[in-house]
Amino acid sequence: MVADLIDGRASARALAADLADRVRELRGDGGRPGLATLAVGTDPGAAMYVRRLAALAGRLGVHHRAHTLPAGASQREVLDAVAALNSDPAVSGILVLRPLPAHLDPTAVFRALDPAKDVEALHPENAGLLALGSPRFVPSTAAAVFHLLDGWLDACGEDRAAFYRRSRIVVVGRSVTVGAPVVALGCARQAGVQSIDEWADRTGGLGRFTRWADVLVVAAGRPGLIRAEHVSPDAVVVDVGIHTVRGPDGRPRTVGDVDAGSVAPRVRALTPVPGGVGPVTDACLLRSTVDAALAGAPARASVGAPG
Amino acid sequence: MVADLIDGRASARALAADLADRVRELRGDGGRPGLATLAVGTDPGAAMYVRRLAALAGRLGVHHRAHTLPAGASQREVLDAVAALNSDPAVSGILVLRPLPAHLDPTAVFRALDPAKDVEALHPENAGLLALGSPRFVPSTAAAVFHLLDGWLDACGEDRAAFYRRSRIVVVGRSVTVGAPVVALGCARQAGVQSIDEWADRTGGLGRFTRWADVLVVAAGRPGLIRAEHVSPDAVVVDVGIHTVRGPDGRPRTVGDVDAGSVAPRVRALTPVPGGVGPVTDACLLRSTVDAALAGAPARASVGAPG
Repeated sequence: MVADLIDGRASARALAADLADRVRELRGDGGRPGLATLAVGTDPGAAMYVRRLAALAGRLGVHHRAHTLPAGASQREVLDAVAALNSDPAVSGILVLRPLPAHLDPTAVFRALDPAKDVEALHPENAGLLALGSPRFVPSTAAAVFHLLDGWLDACGEDRAAFYRRSRIVVVGRSVTVGAPVVALGCARQAGVQSIDEWADRTGGLGRFTRWADVLVVAAGRPGLIRAEHVSPDAVVVDVGIHTVRGPDGRPRTVGDVDAGSVAPRVRALTPVPGGVGPVTDACLLRSTVDAALAGAPARASVGAPG
Repeated sequence: MVADLIDGRASARALAADLADRVRELRGDGGRPGLATLAVGTDPGAAMYVRRLAALAGRLGVHHRAHTLPAGASQREVLDAVAALNSDPAVSGILVLRPLPAHLDPTAVFRALDPAKDVEALHPENAGLLALGSPRFVPSTAAAVFHLLDGWLDACGEDRAAFYRRSRIVVVGRSVTVGAPVVALGCARQAGVQSIDEWADRTGGLGRFTRWADVLVVAAGRPGLIRAEHVSPDAVVVDVGIHTVRGPDGRPRTVGDVDAGSVAPRVRALTPVPGGVGPVTDACLLRSTVDAALAGAPARASVGAPG
């Protein structure tokens, strides 16, 4: 048996098509969906992400502006840039790219975001609403994970609610942007949810955790961490990792946290890298940006600033 | 083998003794630690809890005021009561008793709390700070769970950090007040953490989750849910439940979510009910109330209102 490959590109295209319709309608009503990205310094991964988002925003008719501050920007300069975006009526969603340089305090930066524009839910209020089970925004990678799972279940003819309630979801990695929100969303679906971090591997027991999974979500940030011996045959594996490594031929290639070559023959379904979680994440971020513009519409209309 | 019984009363006495010293010092500096409890309607469990807190506050020298609104109080009346406590300088911590009557919106009530007085961390901002790993307040029951575990590890001569990093913590129950914060605190200790709810039992597989636990925290709200067949021999079991049931002789007795009679002979350690998590929870709530008074001290000093 070879696993189903869960096609993130197809899923993202369908999401984008729905979204394009919503954007047209929203703009017709005077709404102004706009995404601002704010980078500090030049991380190649972040730069690639911004280019992808800019391209998708362009196709959807969502305004996009990319801000880059120099790597040495002070905390004050970053907070000023956030404040300017908070008060810009053409911006409905703000993405602060990570990692931020070590001299900056990320918590203070996220706290400075207008919660109504904080589409990645990193302001404490939005993180709290998510943890309390009534999210204003769902962080885009976590949203993409469940969007792909839901779509795959639909395609299999499985009842989503029944599947999650009887399933064990194991989440590898505990970042506030991915691991923690995936745990919150899994709990909201009433699955048995397990969260582990790098200590599960360091103490030599990664497999005893991960083999337990019906759904294995890997967001560890380590290329090829999950191999054949870490999975059970019925597992559905969602690979959030994305890395550029050199292949045996010396040429760069893109891989995930899952060693797809050894894992794919052993599991029920797998999201590929590239072409899995990544493109759906982009679409989910734009969707939240559109949602934010919609939620902000009355205030915007009152200042008479149609798009 | 019979399990260690983890003595919550002794632990609470030690906590209270430390706290009494801190209260004396704080009051000497003009601080005003004060706990306000706000109940809507008369739930017998909540009333007993308030009496216990009042007694402990009295012994510690912490001001206490108990407010009770009629069961039919409107949302507006509850929010007004919260606003009055927010602005009362003699109140440093506010506990809203649960459950609230069904006609009230609990989220709106928690959102109305001054985050600086929200000692149970139910305001979204405080829930978010906890989820993001930098809590302002830790909900008292979750704090008590780890206070008991830490103390037991110290008594066993086990290194806390090493124990948690190699351990699997299973949390039964997902309330925002107990289950969810225990998961967050377990993740912060880098344990493997698993969260399950009543569906694990309804789908017939409770034991396959709970037997996996090195540390089993039970906050399901169902008397005697966990029996001998649900635990592994090395487990440490923390019982958060508290229920009054009639024994075979028809007389009322207090039991937890764990069937202690069958579980105690099979596990490494167990917190009893009564005398386990409960008294430590009371002390942790008062400790947060004192912390809140200390954090608010400069503002209080500036209005010249010594205790």
